Amino acid sequence: MIIDIHGHYTTEPAAMLQFRDKQLAGLADPGRRPTTSDLGLSDDEIIKSVQPQVKMQQARGSDLTIFSPRAAGMGHHVGTEAVGQEWSRLSNDMIHRVCTLLPDNFAAVGQLPQVPGVSPKNCIPELERIAGLGFVGVNLNPDTSGGHWNDPPLTDRYWYPVYEKLVELKMPAMIHVTGSCNPAVHHTGAHYINADTTAFMQLIQGNLFKDFPELKFVIPHGGGAAPYHWGRYRGLAMMLKKPTLAEHLLKNVFFDTCVYHLPGMSLLTEVVPVDNILFGSEMLGAVRDIDPETGNYFDDTKRYIDQIGRLSDADRYKLLEGNARKVYPRLDAQLAKRGKPGRPA
Amino acid sequence: MIIDIHGHYTTEPAAMLQFRDKQLAGLADPGRRPTTSDLGLSDDEIIKSVQPQVKMQQARGSDLTIFSPRAAGMGHHVGTEAVGQEWSRLSNDMIHRVCTLLPDNFAAVGQLPQVPGVSPKNCIPELERIAGLGFVGVNLNPDTSGGHWNDPPLTDRYWYPVYEKLVELKMPAMIHVTGSCNPAVHHTGAHYINADTTAFMQLIQGNLFKDFPELKFVIPHGGGAAPYHWGRYRGLAMMLKKPTLAEHLLKNVFFDTCVYHLPGMSLLTEVVPVDNILFGSEMLGAVRDIDPETGNYFDDTKRYIDQIGRLSDADRYKLLEGNARKVYPRLDAQLAKRGKPGRPA
Repeated sequence: MIIDIHGHYTTEPAAMLQFRDKQLAGLADPGRRPTTSDLGLSDDEIIKSVQPQVKMQQARGSDLTIFSPRAAGMGHHVGTEAVGQEWSRLSNDMIHRVCTLLPDNFAAVGQLPQVPGVSPKNCIPELERIAGLGFVGVNLNPDTSGGHWNDPPLTDRYWYPVYEKLVELKMPAMIHVTGSCNPAVHHTGAHYINADTTAFMQLIQGNLFKDFPELKFVIPHGGGAAPYHWGRYRGLAMMLKKPTLAEHLLKNVFFDTCVYHLPGMSLLTEVVPVDNILFGSEMLGAVRDIDPETGNYFDDTKRYIDQIGRLSDADRYKLLEGNARKVYPRLDAQLAKRGKPGRPA
Repeated sequence: MIIDIHGHYTTEPAAMLQFRDKQLAGLADPGRRPTTSDLGLSDDEIIKSVQPQVKMQQARGSDLTIFSPRAAGMGHHVGTEAVGQEWSRLSNDMIHRVCTLLPDNFAAVGQLPQVPGVSPKNCIPELERIAGLGFVGVNLNPDTSGGHWNDPPLTDRYWYPVYEKLVELKMPAMIHVTGSCNPAVHHTGAHYINADTTAFMQLIQGNLFKDFPELKFVIPHGGGAAPYHWGRYRGLAMMLKKPTLAEHLLKNVFFDTCVYHLPGMSLLTEVVPVDNILFGSEMLGAVRDIDPETGNYFDDTKRYIDQIGRLSDADRYKLLEGNARKVYPRLDAQLAKRGKPGRPA
C-alpha cells in the first residue's frame, strides 16, 4: 500500500470556516460568538468534502493519506487561549470524523492548542484526548507568533512536557508552522520552508535526542532548504563539534517528499538516506496547478519518485510505506489490526 | 579571469573588533566610547590580514573576490543610528583600504547604515560616498531586526529611495542579512538561508522590476531554498497570476554558487539558467572545514562547478566571469580600464 504522510483538510465544509469567523468576530463583539460547536454536518457532507482528495488518491495511485487540519488555519497567533482550545478541539473532531468515516483513505493527525508565550504543557489534555480517538501523530508549531519567531528553539526544555507525552503515546510530530501574520513572509512560499530549515538547524545545535531517543520528528516540504544545503549542514555540525548528521539526527528526524519538481526530488533522494524519507504530497496544498513543463500536477510527487531509477524496490517500499509504518507506529498497529500488516523487516 | 562575487572580511584585524566593542560599550558607559575612528593600522597590517583569502584564491584558482564587510558584523539591530553610521563608515573604509592596496585581488562592496524602523533613505549619503570610492555594489539587509522580520517586504515603496540611487549608480545589491539576535534562528544555518528564500518569495509576490527594470539583486547562498523548490515557486507564481519566473524575475535576480556539496551545485545549475548564476564561495565564511567525504574544503565551490559536465565552455565563462561583469558593471569598467576587458558578447 502507498501511504501519503502529508495531507491537510483544505476542503473543509463552509460551516467550519463560518464557525471560525464567528469565533474570531466574537473576540470583538461577544454577541457574535457561535452558540454551539456542533456544525450540524451530516456524514454525507463530510464524505463529500474529501472527495477531491479521494479522487486524487485514486488518480495518483496512493492508498492512505495521513490527514491533519489545514495548516494555515491552525492560527496559533490568533485570539485567546480559550479560543485556540475550542478551535483545536473542533478541528481535530472534524479530522476524526473524516478518518472514522473513511478509515481506508485517511489516518488522523491533530493540531495542538499552542499559544504564544504559554507553556506547551497546555496541549497535553488535547494530546491525550486525540490519542484516545486513535490519532497517529500531531503537528507541532515551532513559531506560534506566526512569522516573528518568538518561541524558544525546539531543543529548549520549554518543549519537553510535550515531547514526554509524545514519546509515551508513541506519536511523532510533524514540525509545521501555521499561517504567517508577517507581511514580509509568505506562508507557503517562505514561512513553511523557512520553518523546516530553522527547525533542522535548531536540532543540529542542540542534543535533543540524547534526552529523547524515542522521539520522532518529520520535517515537511522535503526538509526546507536542508537537503539542498546538505554540505553546509554537515559542515556546520562539524564546526559545532557535533557528531555526523546521521548519528546526531537521522535516527529521529525524517523528511517528506513535498518537493514539486524532478530535480529537487532527485537531490533529496540522493543526499538523504532512503530510511529517512517518507512519501508525502501536501495534497491539496500549496500548489494546485498543472506544471506546464510536464503536463502533470506540481504536487503529484509520486511521479517524480517513479522517475528516479536509482531507487531499488526495497527503497521504494520504505519510502512509500515502510518508513511511514515505523515513524507512525500507531498507524502501523491500526493497519495490522485491519488485516493490512507491513512487510516483515 | 575568475571572479568570486561573495567574500567577506572575516579576517579583520583585532583593532577593528576592539573598536566595535568600545563603540557598543559606549552605549552603556559613554566614557568607554572610542576616542578616534583611526584604528592606527599600517598598510602592511591590512595586507597581512587578507593573506588567508589571497592564499585561497591562489590555491583554488580564482583571481578576484568581490569583498564586503563581515555580514554578521553589520549588526543593523545593534545600537543607535549614529553608532550604525559610524560603524558602516569605518567598515567600508576598511574594505576600501583592502581593495586599494590589492586591486587585482579584491573589489569593494559596502554595507549600508540601515536602522530598524528608519527609512532607508538614511543610507543614501553613505551609498554616494562609497560609490565615489569605487565600490561596485552593496549588501542590502531585508531584515534589520536581526531575525524577527519586522521590515516591509523588498517590494514595498519603503525601499524605493535606495533602489533609485542604486540604479543611478549602476550598483547591484546582494540581499544579505546580518547576524541573528533571535535564539531560535542560527545566523549562518538558518537566518541567511531563510532570508534568501524569503526575499525570492517577496519578489514573486510583487512587481518590483516593472518599476525598476535596471535594478539587479544577487540572492546569495545559492538562492536559499529557491532552486531546490523551483517547482513550488513556479507553481506559486502561477497561482499568484504572475508571469513565468524567467519573465517575472530572471532579468533582475541572480544567484551565487555558495552551495557546499556537488548534488546541490548540480541542482542549481540544472534548474536556474546559467545566465543567472554567479560564482561565489563565501570564502572565508560560514563553513571552514574540510569535508571528510571529499577531502576538500566545503566552501571550495569551484571544484563542484568543475565536475558538472553538462556546462559548456561558454556557460563556464558566464558563470565564472561574464555574468559578474554584467551584474557589476562598475567592476567591469574598472577591469577594462586596467587592461582586463571581458570577452566580447
